[in-house]
Amino acid sequence: MPELRKDPVVGRWVIISTERARRPTDFAPDPVRPRASSCVFCEGSEDKTPPEILAGRPPGSEPNSPGWTYRVVANKFPALRIEGDLEPAGEGLFDYMNGVGAHEVVIETPDHAAALATLTIDTATDVFAAYRERLRDLKKDPRFEYVLVFKNYGEAAGASLEHPHSQLIATPIIPIMVTEELEGSARYWERKERCVWCDIVRQERRAGRRVIVEANGFVALAPFAPRFPFETWILPTRHQSAFEESEEDELRAFASAVQEVLGRINRTLHDPPFNFVLHTAPLRDSALEHFHWHLEVIPKLTRVAGFEWGSGFFINPVPPEDSAAALRDAELPRGP
Amino acid sequence: MPELRKDPVVGRWVIISTERARRPTDFAPDPVRPRASSCVFCEGSEDKTPPEILAGRPPGSEPNSPGWTYRVVANKFPALRIEGDLEPAGEGLFDYMNGVGAHEVVIETPDHAAALATLTIDTATDVFAAYRERLRDLKKDPRFEYVLVFKNYGEAAGASLEHPHSQLIATPIIPIMVTEELEGSARYWERKERCVWCDIVRQERRAGRRVIVEANGFVALAPFAPRFPFETWILPTRHQSAFEESEEDELRAFASAVQEVLGRINRTLHDPPFNFVLHTAPLRDSALEHFHWHLEVIPKLTRVAGFEWGSGFFINPVPPEDSAAALRDAELPRGP
Repeated sequence: MPELRKDPVVGRWVIISTERARRPTDFAPDPVRPRASSCVFCEGSEDKTPPEILAGRPPGSEPNSPGWTYRVVANKFPALRIEGDLEPAGEGLFDYMNGVGAHEVVIETPDHAAALATLTIDTATDVFAAYRERLRDLKKDPRFEYVLVFKNYGEAAGASLEHPHSQLIATPIIPIMVTEELEGSARYWERKERCVWCDIVRQERRAGRRVIVEANGFVALAPFAPRFPFETWILPTRHQSAFEESEEDELRAFASAVQEVLGRINRTLHDPPFNFVLHTAPLRDSALEHFHWHLEVIPKLTRVAGFEWGSGFFINPVPPEDSAAALRDAELPRGP
Repeated sequence: MPELRKDPVVGRWVIISTERARRPTDFAPDPVRPRASSCVFCEGSEDKTPPEILAGRPPGSEPNSPGWTYRVVANKFPALRIEGDLEPAGEGLFDYMNGVGAHEVVIETPDHAAALATLTIDTATDVFAAYRERLRDLKKDPRFEYVLVFKNYGEAAGASLEHPHSQLIATPIIPIMVTEELEGSARYWERKERCVWCDIVRQERRAGRRVIVEANGFVALAPFAPRFPFETWILPTRHQSAFEESEEDELRAFASAVQEVLGRINRTLHDPPFNFVLHTAPLRDSALEHFHWHLEVIPKLTRVAGFEWGSGFFINPVPPEDSAAALRDAELPRGP
C-alpha cells in the first residue's frame, strides 16, 4: 500500500509509492526503457487497460470496445489506491497516512500520432469536459480533498507512454503549492478585498507586454516572476475558483486557448516536452472569493533544475516579456 | 543587469538572469553543448578565470599562478552582479529589484579527474573551510541576506563543467525554501520550545531505520518524507543554526561525513549525477534557537519531475527506510 507522509518542518506531503518501487540497482543513470511493441492506449487494445470509467462514444457503442473518441481509465500503476478508509497515524513527531486516492488516465484520442494541440476543437473540448466530469464525480467521495489534473508530454517531462494522455490524482490532502496559493491569495484579499489573479489579469491586459493571446474570456500570459523559461499561465478573465463549475461554452473557449498556447509553444520551441498542471480550488472550497483557477504550462527546456529543487530558488534566463513576445509573434498554421 | 522578481501570490523570488539570456531558437530539445578543448578550471589556466578571491596555497605561492589546492573565483557568467546598490521597485502590484548579488565558484581541486568524494580529507576539509570563509566575508556586505551554497555534479544535475566545483550565490533576499523552514521550525518551537531538527535527530537515532551513518557529531539520514529517491540529509547532532560558526574540527568531521555519504551513493547508484544544497541560517540571524543547519543531498535518478514542479507534490518510489538500508549496507573501498 502506498503511503502519504508529511514533512514535519514545512508541512509538505509526499507519496511514498511502494507499488512503483524499484530496487537501487534499477537506478542506473539514463535507463533504457523497453518499448511496448503495441500501445495499450490505442483503439483495439481496450482490454489491455482497466475498465473505462468514462468515455466519449456514439449511441449504442459498447463500453471497452472500439469506436470511442476519448476514454478515462484507472492507472494500471497507480501512485495511490482507491480501496480503504483513511487511517492517519503518527510515528513520534512524524505524520503519515495510508495512500488512499484515485489515479486515472485520460486517453485524449484513439489516434496514437495525434497531439492535444491539434485535435479538433470538439475533441479537445471533450477532454476538458472529461476532467470536469471526473472532478465532479470524485468530489462526491468524502475521503478526497483535492484532484490534481496534469499532463506530462514527452519522455523528458516524465511521460512513460507516447499516446496522448493526461492524468488525474485524487488525494486526501491538498498539495503544498495549492496551499501556498490559497494562503497568499487570502492574505491579499484581507488587505485589498480583491482577488490577486483578477488584479494580475487586469494589470497585464492594460500593460500588454506579458500577454500572449486573449479570446472568449480566457487570457494566456507569461507570469511576472516565472520559474522556468516560457512558463505560461492560462486564466479565465472572469473570477471563478473551481474549474469544475465551468459551463460548456467556457470549456470550449478554454480548450481553444490551451490549443492556441500549445501550438505557439510548438511553433516557437520545436515541439518541446512540457507539463501542464491545473490549479483549482480544493474540493471542499468550491466558491472562494480569493482563489482563481488557472492552468500552468511549463515547457521542459533546461536541465539546470537540480539545485532549484533543493532551494526553491529559480534562475530563469528568459525574461517573460521576451517569451511572451516570441509566443505572440509565432505564426500559426491555419487549420482546414 | 539581472533582475529579482517576486511572485505576488506565494512570495517566491526568482532571478531573471538576462546575462545568461538565450534566444528562443536556442532551446532546441537536448542541445549539443560544444565542449571546450581545455578546461578553464585546471591548473595552468588560472588566467582564464576571473582573479581568485581565496585559494589554498603554500607560503610564497603567487595568486593566480599554479600550485594551489583549491581556488574561489567569481563566476564568469554570474546569475547576479556584484556592482551597485539595491533598488527595490514596483510595477503596479508586482515587486522587483535589480539583481545585485555575488556568484562565486569554488574549484575544489586542481585535478580535473578527481571527485569531492575521494579527495584527501585535508583537501575536502579545505573546500568546506572555503565555504565558511566566503560566508563570513559576504556577511560583511549589508546588501546580502543569504548565501546559498550548492553543488551540481553531472550534466543531468545542471553542471556545465566537469571539473570538480561547487558554487555560492549571495542574494539580497532569502530563498523561499529557507523561509518555509524558518517559519515551520519557528511554529514547532512555539509549541514545544525545542528545535524540530534536534527532535528529528534524537528520534531517528533511537529508531535507527533511516540512519545511514553517524560519526564525530554528524549524522546522515534519509528524511521521513523525502521528495526524491535516495534524498539524504547530513546534520550536526549538536544544535547550531549557522554553518559559518563551525569550528575547524567540526568542518573536518562534516567533510568526512559528506565524503562517506557521497561514497556510499556512488557505490550503490553507480556514480549518479547529484545536487547538494546547504541550508543554513540567514546572514542576519546567526544564532537561532529553532533553526539547525544541514546539507541536503539529492541524487538525480528520475526524470519524472516536471509535474512535481507545477504542484509541489512529489511521488517517490523508494521508501527512505529502503534507501537508508541500501546506503548503510554499501561496502566502501578502504583508502590507502
